[in-house]
Amino acid sequence: MLELRLVQGSLLKKVLEAIKDLVNDANFDCSSATGFSLQAMDSSHVALVGLLLRSEGFEHYRCDRNLSMGMNLGNMAKMLRCAANDDIVTIKADDDADTVTFMFESPSQDKIADYEMKLMDIDSEHLGIPEAEYQAIVRMSSSEFARICKDLSSIGDTVIISVSKEGVKFTTKGDIGTANIVCRQNTTVDKTEEATVIEMEEPVSLTFALRYMNLFTKATPLSSQVTISLSSELPMVVEYKIAEIGYIRYYLAPKIDEEEENGGQMESRPKVDIKSKAETKPKLRIKPKEEISLDEGSEPMVEAKAEVDIENEVEIMDPMLESKAEVEVENEVEVMEVKESNPKVEDKSEVKDTDVDVMEV
Amino acid sequence: MLELRLVQGSLLKKVLEAIKDLVNDANFDCSSATGFSLQAMDSSHVALVGLLLRSEGFEHYRCDRNLSMGMNLGNMAKMLRCAANDDIVTIKADDDADTVTFMFESPSQDKIADYEMKLMDIDSEHLGIPEAEYQAIVRMSSSEFARICKDLSSIGDTVIISVSKEGVKFTTKGDIGTANIVCRQNTTVDKTEEATVIEMEEPVSLTFALRYMNLFTKATPLSSQVTISLSSELPMVVEYKIAEIGYIRYYLAPKIDEEEENGGQMESRPKVDIKSKAETKPKLRIKPKEEISLDEGSEPMVEAKAEVDIENEVEIMDPMLESKAEVEVENEVEVMEVKESNPKVEDKSEVKDTDVDVMEV
Amino acid sequence: MLELRLVQGSLLKKVLEAIKDLVNDANFDCSSATGFSLQAMDSSHVALVGLLLRSEGFEHYRCDRNLSMGMNLGNMAKMLRCAANDDIVTIKADDDADTVTFMFESPSQDKIADYEMKLMDIDSEHLGIPEAEYQAIVRMSSSEFARICKDLSSIGDTVIISVSKEGVKFTTKGDIGTANIVCRQNTTVDKTEEATVIEMEEPVSLTFALRYMNLFTKATPLSSQVTISLSSELPMVVEYKIAEIGYIRYYLAPKIDEEEENGGQMESRPKVDIKSKAETKPKLRIKPKEEISLDEGSEPMVEAKAEVDIENEVEIMDPMLESKAEVEVENEVEVMEVKESNPKVEDKSEVKDTDVDVMEV
Repeated sequence: MLELRLVQGSLLKKVLEAIKDLVNDANFDCSSATGFSLQAMDSSHVALVGLLLRSEGFEHYRCDRNLSMGMNLGNMAKMLRCAANDDIVTIKADDDADTVTFMFESPSQDKIADYEMKLMDIDSEHLGIPEAEYQAIVRMSSSEFARICKDLSSIGDTVIISVSKEGVKFTTKGDIGTANIVCRQNTTVDKTEEATVIEMEEPVSLTFALRYMNLFTKATPLSSQVTISLSSELPMVVEYKIAEIGYIRYYLAPKIDEEEENGGQMESRPKVDIKSKAETKPKLRIKPKEEISLDEGSEPMVEAKAEVDIENEVEIMDPMLESKAEVEVENEVEVMEVKESNPKVEDKSEVKDTDVDVMEV
Repeated sequence: MLELRLVQGSLLKKVLEAIKDLVNDANFDCSSATGFSLQAMDSSHVALVGLLLRSEGFEHYRCDRNLSMGMNLGNMAKMLRCAANDDIVTIKADDDADTVTFMFESPSQDKIADYEMKLMDIDSEHLGIPEAEYQAIVRMSSSEFARICKDLSSIGDTVIISVSKEGVKFTTKGDIGTANIVCRQNTTVDKTEEATVIEMEEPVSLTFALRYMNLFTKATPLSSQVTISLSSELPMVVEYKIAEIGYIRYYLAPKIDEEEENGGQMESRPKVDIKSKAETKPKLRIKPKEEISLDEGSEPMVEAKAEVDIENEVEIMDPMLESKAEVEVENEVEVMEVKESNPKVEDKSEVKDTDVDVMEV
Repeated sequence: MLELRLVQGSLLKKVLEAIKDLVNDANFDCSSATGFSLQAMDSSHVALVGLLLRSEGFEHYRCDRNLSMGMNLGNMAKMLRCAANDDIVTIKADDDADTVTFMFESPSQDKIADYEMKLMDIDSEHLGIPEAEYQAIVRMSSSEFARICKDLSSIGDTVIISVSKEGVKFTTKGDIGTANIVCRQNTTVDKTEEATVIEMEEPVSLTFALRYMNLFTKATPLSSQVTISLSSELPMVVEYKIAEIGYIRYYLAPKIDEEEENGGQMESRPKVDIKSKAETKPKLRIKPKEEISLDEGSEPMVEAKAEVDIENEVEIMDPMLESKAEVEVENEVEVMEVKESNPKVEDKSEVKDTDVDVMEV
C-alpha cells in the first residue's frame, strides 16, 4: 500500500513538466527510507535525469514495501495538469497493483478528483552516480541561466561553458555569427536568488549541446537558483533544488572538441580508442558506486565485457563505456543518430548489437 | 426599421464567441415583444442553442416589425471583434433590407465605426422547447464547470454526469486511464459565484459527448454561474444567464449506453425502434409546444409523418424523431457521421433522403 | 572605428521589430554628422522605410569615418532579442571590418554579452526624399491606428483614408461586407497621446494596401502617437517619433483607383503612360533632392534615361519612374507580382530588364 500526500501539489506538476520532454517512460521508485525518486536516461541516451522527493517532505508518507512504478510521463503530466495549483495531491497505489491513482483535493475540500493511470513494465537499471569533486561549481539565477540557454540557441547549437575566478562565460557560434555571455561573480546582490557564486578548484572549459540544456531549463519554475557542476572528467550536473523536499538533477556529458582531437584532420576520420584517451580526454563513464546511490535494493550492476572504440564527437553517457563489447561508431556520430542511421550500418552487426545494449542497460 | 442599442456592447461580442463554433449560419429573430433571439442546431444536428436578449435590456429598442435575419456567425463574430470592449453597440437594419449594420461607438464618441454585413437566406424552423420538470438541477461556478470539461477531455471523449444529494460527479474513461471529479454541494462559500447548489428530485446519471460540452463552455465569460438541468427523459440544458438581459441555453441529448442497450452484444447490431423504447430510454424529442416557445409569429410546424427506426448510440435531437418517414440508421452512427459516410450508404436511399430532411427541418 | 552606446537599448530592439518584416537586408549608415540611419525599400519595392537615430541621442557616439554596414535584419533582430529590455546596447565595428558587434550590458554590469554578426555587401542607392507640403496631416494615437488597420484587414484588403476638417475616415470593403471608421478631431482629451489632431489644406481621399499599413504598425511600441501625411500627389508618410532621438518613417504610394482610371473598362486593360498622367494622377516619384536627404556623402544619383509606360493599378515607388528606360507593365500588376510572374512575361525582354533595374536602383 502506497499513499503519499503532498500539500504543495503544484510541485509535482512542475516536476513532470521538467522531465516529460526529456524522458518518455520511466520508473518511479518509492521506498520508505529515501522517498519518491526517479532516474532515467533520455531516449537518445545522452542525458540522465535524477529526481528525489524525500519522504519527510510529504504531509503523509506511507510506503509499506518498496515499489517501482513504470509510468508514461506524458500521460502522467496530462493528469497532473488537471490539478489546480493550490490542490493537495495524493499518489495512491496498492502493492502489486497495475494502476496508480492521483487524487487532487481543492483547499476547501469541495472538489475532489481521482485520476487512475495504468502502469507500465519498463526495463531499467539504476546507475550509481558517484559523489565527485568538481573543478568548478557555479550557482546562479535559474531564470538567467534559462534565458542564456535560449538566447544562445538562436545563434548556435552548442555552448562552451568556461569558468574562471571572475565569472562564467557562455560562448556559441553559428551561421549568423558568434555570441559570448559573461556572468560575473556577484554575491552582494539585493536578492539572494540573483547572486552568481563560483567555487573553483581550477579553470574549466567544456562544450555541451544546447538542445539538452534547454530541456533542463524546463525545471526553472521549481527553483530560483540553479547549480552547475563542471569537471573535465565528468558529465556536468545541472541541479534545481525542490523547496525543502528534494531536487532534480540533470547529467550531460561534454562534447569532445573534434578539432583538438583530430588535429583538425576532420576529413581523415581517425579512429579513436576511448579507453586509451582516458587520461587526456573527459571520461564519460558513470560507474556504480556506493555513495549517494539512488538505486537502493537494486541488483548489482552486470559488468559486461566489451571493447569500446568510439570515434570522437560522440555524445554518450553510458556505463557500457566501461564494458568490453566491441563497439565501432564513426566520427561525429551522436548515439541518437546511430540509432536513426541503423539502416546504413545494418551490415556492421557489432554496432547494432551494441546499440541495443546501450538501450537496454 | 430595426435599431437596437446595447450599452454593454461587449456582451454581444461574448455571445458571438459563445455560439460561432457551434453554429455556422443562423437566423436572428427580432420582435418587439420578446427581444433579440436565436435558435439553431449545430451543423451535425446533435446540439441546439437558444439565445434571448430581452428588449428591456437594450438602452434603445426599436423593432417596427418582426424580422428574421440570416447571418453567418463567423463573419458576424469577425465584425464584432472590431468593437472595443467598452464600445456601445447598435444593431441596425431596414425592413426588407439585405444587410445589417453594426455600429460601434467609443464611450467618448470620438471613434464611430459602422460594419455592414450581407444577410443570408437560411431555411430554418423554430422548435418549441417545452417547459419541463428536471430530475436534477445543478448550479455551479461556470469556470469550474469549464475546467472540468476541459480536464476530462484530456482523458476521454464522453462524460457521465451523476447527481446525488451530496454532489455532482463527472466521470470519464480513456486509453490512458479514468477520471472522477466530485463537486460537493456547498452553499456557504464566501463568493456566491463559487457556490454549488443541487436541486434534486431523484438521482440521475447520464452520458454526454465532451466535444459538445466544451463548445458550450465558450459561454463562460458571459456568466459566473452555469445551471445544468438533467432528466433521463430529456436533453440536458446548460444555461448561462446574460447579465439582467437574457440567457444562452444549450441542449444536448444524452448518449444511450450501448452496452446496457445491447446487453453487450455490440457485434450483432440489433435494430432498436426508438419509439418502442420511449418508456425506458431517454426521449430525444423536442416537440413543438406552446409554452415558452421562442418562435413567435413563425409558421405552424409541419407535422411530417415518418417512422423512425434508429439503432442505438445515435446522437440526435431532432423533431423528425416524432415524424413518420422511414429512417434507418445503423448502430453507433452519429448524424454527423452519416453525412460523412454517405458514399458508403448511398444505396440506402431512405437514409439519404432522411438525411436531407434532417438538415432541412 | 565605430562605437555607439545607447542606454535605452530596448529602443533598438523595437526598431528592428518595426522594420524586419518589411525589409530583409539593408545598409545601416553611420556618420558623425547625422547619426545612425537606414533607408530601404521593401522586397516588392512598394514601400520605403527611413530610420534616423541622431548622434546626440546616444550616450557615447564615436564614428571615425562614415560607414555603411549591410545587415540581414532578421539576424540582427534575432541578436537584439537576446538583449534584456533594460540592457545598455553598444554597436561596435572597426573601419573596414566585415563584422559588427552588439554588446549588451545589464544595468548592474553583472552580465555582459557580445554578439558578433557578419556584414553583407548590399547594393543600394539612397533616394532623396524631398521635403513636401502635404494636403492633410493627421496625428493620432498609434495604438488606435494599429487597431484600425488590424480591424479593417479582417474585412478587406485596401483602405480608403479620407480626411476632412471633422476627422479622418477609414473605409474598406470585402466579401463579407463593408466597414467605416471615423475618428473625430479631438484635442481636449485627458491624455495627450489619445488626441486626434488634423492639419488640413484641402480634403483628401486616398487608397492604400492594408498589408503594408499593418507592417508599418509594427512600430507602434516606439511611440504613443503616429503622424500620417497625405497628399494626392505623393506617397503617404507614416511617422513614429523615437523618444528624443529620431524617427522611423514609412512611405507608401496610394493605389490608383482602377475604375476611375479606366472608366470601369477593366477588361480592356488600357495602357497608361505614367508620365502623361502626372498632372492628374498621384506622382509616385521620389526625386533626389538636396533637402533633408538622408544620403549624405553618397554618390550623386545616376540619372538613368528610361521611358516608363506603366498601366494603372501599379503600386510602385521608385526613382526609375523618372528615368527613361522603356518599361511596360500590365494593368493591375504590383511590382512584386511582376517578379513572381516573370516566367509569364519572360518574352517581354523590356519588362524583365527593367524589373532588374528596379531592384538594382
